[in-house]
Amino acid sequence: MIDFTPLEERIGYSFKDRDLLQQVFIHRSYLNEHRAFPLEHNERLEFLGDAVLELIVTEHLYRHYPNPEGELTTYRSALVKGETLAQIAVTLDFPNYLMVSKGEEKSGGRTKAYLMANALEAFIGALHLDGGYAIAEQFIHENVLSMLENIIANNLHIDPKSRLQEYTQEHFGITPHYDVLSETGPDHAKEFTVLVRINDRELGRGVGNSKQAGQVAAATSALEELLK
Amino acid sequence: MIDFTPLEERIGYSFKDRDLLQQVFIHRSYLNEHRAFPLEHNERLEFLGDAVLELIVTEHLYRHYPNPEGELTTYRSALVKGETLAQIAVTLDFPNYLMVSKGEEKSGGRTKAYLMANALEAFIGALHLDGGYAIAEQFIHENVLSMLENIIANNLHIDPKSRLQEYTQEHFGITPHYDVLSETGPDHAKEFTVLVRINDRELGRGVGNSKQAGQVAAATSALEELLK
Repeated sequence: MIDFTPLEERIGYSFKDRDLLQQVFIHRSYLNEHRAFPLEHNERLEFLGDAVLELIVTEHLYRHYPNPEGELTTYRSALVKGETLAQIAVTLDFPNYLMVSKGEEKSGGRTKAYLMANALEAFIGALHLDGGYAIAEQFIHENVLSMLENIIANNLHIDPKSRLQEYTQEHFGITPHYDVLSETGPDHAKEFTVLVRINDRELGRGVGNSKQAGQVAAATSALEELLK
Repeated sequence: MIDFTPLEERIGYSFKDRDLLQQVFIHRSYLNEHRAFPLEHNERLEFLGDAVLELIVTEHLYRHYPNPEGELTTYRSALVKGETLAQIAVTLDFPNYLMVSKGEEKSGGRTKAYLMANALEAFIGALHLDGGYAIAEQFIHENVLSMLENIIANNLHIDPKSRLQEYTQEHFGITPHYDVLSETGPDHAKEFTVLVRINDRELGRGVGNSKQAGQVAAATSALEELLK
């Protein structure tokens, strides 16, 4: 069995049920290659953990921010989105614990953002089962809600296209314009490369599997450049 | 102030904070006409209650059903969808408590399904704040989770089109076919009338604001007829 002591020391909680902790890190692909493995994969734990995370974040926002529901929803989305959760999972060294199939391993599965995010939700579910709601709450306060002030201060809860538009209007008095540079790949796996500019000045480029996703990627890249 | 005693007696819990209970039933439209009214509308409570409901239902499913996560998700969707919540709100007499504007009142707002569902979520949020998690849990067990066995027994968690297809294949050895009969209304408020049939036998009709929604409505009506 993997030694989880570093993880447990880091979060200040030691699991009573060692199998439950192990299960957090079992991706479904691992079981395809190890059919006799005695534990389930982590998807049911993820189902539970997602709801635990949602309530703890929601209640914190409700109690501490007087903003209208629509704004609280954008704060919450920024906190619980896959990208944010994956980032937290990496700081907790999850890629070293995750058990995936050899195929998944080769395609970089161990560090795929959504596998990381799913494992973090499974971990929250396991914490709730093993230690109770208060233990899960403490973990979420220290590791997730701790990112909230930074998100609000930097407007990270506002979508990149709106943020870029605000920025260019404030600094240049002008709205950004998006051009699709290319559209490649078969129908089920299209790739759009999008450029964003003000007048003739290119601000950034991005790639996505829809026009909209390409625009968001371009706006994100433009913001990174402008706010350097 | 409205007398909430019948409601409180029915659910077996008496609110300490009367304003909180009142706030559950204040729709945003009411405040437009009563600007000096001292309470907020119910949307922030709804934001909280939605997450409380989600966790309590999720934890119940996790603990009592060994099914894969995908199936648990369909059970949960059937339990927390607007239609189900509105139905519960009506049995609790919510339409008599809801405070809406005169305009909303005229357009039938007091009994609109989504206003009912939102008020029920707000009520769950208020229960959680006033009585704590265990009180909210008891209410959800008695009023929401109590519908689960019926949902599973009657396959109500499976979408109507899939259920109809299963039924017609089993009983007639044939797949249903959908025809759009008409498409009316302006672009932002289209209405599709859809007919569902096997060969030349009409099974039902339905109306929706997309082709897909019209098909689901037609399948629902066909199932009602076939299962009579």
